[in-house]
Amino acid sequence: MTADKYAPIGVFDSGLGGLTVVREIMKNMPNERLVYFGDTARVPYGTKSKSTIIRYSRQIINFLKTQNVKAIVVACNTASALALDTVENEIDIPIIGVVRPGTDMALKATKNKKIGVIATDSTIRSNLYQKLLTEGDEDVKVYAKACPLFVPLVEEGWTNDMVTEIVAQRYLYEVLNKKIDTLILGCTHYPLLSTLIGKVAGKRVQLVNPAYETAQALDRMLTELNLKNDSETEEEKKYQFFASDTAEKFNAFANLILPYDVKATKQIRIESYQETLNDK
Amino acid sequence: MTADKYAPIGVFDSGLGGLTVVREIMKNMPNERLVYFGDTARVPYGTKSKSTIIRYSRQIINFLKTQNVKAIVVACNTASALALDTVENEIDIPIIGVVRPGTDMALKATKNKKIGVIATDSTIRSNLYQKLLTEGDEDVKVYAKACPLFVPLVEEGWTNDMVTEIVAQRYLYEVLNKKIDTLILGCTHYPLLSTLIGKVAGKRVQLVNPAYETAQALDRMLTELNLKNDSETEEEKKYQFFASDTAEKFNAFANLILPYDVKATKQIRIESYQETLNDK
Repeated sequence: MTADKYAPIGVFDSGLGGLTVVREIMKNMPNERLVYFGDTARVPYGTKSKSTIIRYSRQIINFLKTQNVKAIVVACNTASALALDTVENEIDIPIIGVVRPGTDMALKATKNKKIGVIATDSTIRSNLYQKLLTEGDEDVKVYAKACPLFVPLVEEGWTNDMVTEIVAQRYLYEVLNKKIDTLILGCTHYPLLSTLIGKVAGKRVQLVNPAYETAQALDRMLTELNLKNDSETEEEKKYQFFASDTAEKFNAFANLILPYDVKATKQIRIESYQETLNDK
Repeated sequence: MTADKYAPIGVFDSGLGGLTVVREIMKNMPNERLVYFGDTARVPYGTKSKSTIIRYSRQIINFLKTQNVKAIVVACNTASALALDTVENEIDIPIIGVVRPGTDMALKATKNKKIGVIATDSTIRSNLYQKLLTEGDEDVKVYAKACPLFVPLVEEGWTNDMVTEIVAQRYLYEVLNKKIDTLILGCTHYPLLSTLIGKVAGKRVQLVNPAYETAQALDRMLTELNLKNDSETEEEKKYQFFASDTAEKFNAFANLILPYDVKATKQIRIESYQETLNDK
């Protein structure tokens, strides 16, 4: 593949949570053009099966290819955990997910080798976080907990709320009892709860935000591949946003998260993209 | 159309909640054969747009037509509120939703003409409950409230839980302050919270469960059309279950709700069904 370093980076998520990754990329790599796709007509992925998430991810990658992206970021923990290992063997565009940057950081951060992971049900059941954290050091202990109410609580806007705090105390009780010193926020919505989770977890627990780590890892990957955009651009279409459902909610939520005014999200019919990938 | 009264009734929902309607039909009309479809690969509908829900409903109806159903029940409040008025003009199979049976019952039940409605965000924003409740009597006052956390709380299994009670108190506070005497549970998951909601609402408020009312309305409709199945059947395929995602979770949840042992849910690719309907 002859990649163009001025081409955009494609970022996708099941819905809006991946915008927390976009935010970090915008901050870290202000020269880069971005194309974001949120699968808002089929959100959430965290309750769905591996085969369905692979199918959806392949369709989205086929859409991103029509945008001539130079690299792809799977800005969704569930898709990173369930589909990345399959799709990365099917395309010749560089692709990274959010799981490995998160586990790499957690392994650097932990001192007592007791690491907690909170994520969606499908991500936890995939066991990928557990596998990556222990494969290099079998002394590492991982305590994982699915927190299915966190996403709807964030979407309800209850990010600093007594109900959310009680839910967090309940979800984190066992994990905290294991005396973890590091906690991975393994779902893109969870950084929006980091103040509250930090309060419940206490000062001794370091929170790892894979969104931030992913932006760093993306920077390193593009540098290695000589694909970083080295020219400042102020063009109008620098950032483009696409979704599978209508745009109203998307724009409102995006404007809460991003240091950029999202006005014109385009709706596309994601089902019309092929369910197979065959670059290789 | 020459309908066969021994043909099955098609029932569909965004996911599993519609099984509360199936349960009532099984109890009320034990002779009827049923084909259920749950759109578990695209669930929930309650946060999505009208155009998307119409598109999904058309695909599902095209699938149900391949099963030669004699009638269709839209066992999903969101699809009933956003898609039924469109699709009923496009097919010549008798079709009913859950909204009108619920509003008919609420209008019979209320004495002070103050009716509350709780439902998903999309259902409340559709204004259909509000419209149907007031179109025959402008003295009726409707107080509507979207309760987006109730579905995830039910799916977490917290149906009799302090957190759910606090959430219910918060959601119902304003509606109850209006001195309603009737409250419509306008989402198929909510009857699973009826004990808790009843406790929060108090004895003076009568809860209306559209699932029960819909089974009654279906019975009346089939009787009028001379489409009731009058022969007892114990065949193996009397009840058939289909879903768009894999079946494991479906079966577990179905077996919690139904007086029938669901073993063999079949997965179908709902996206491969046409997005148009053209009987008429």
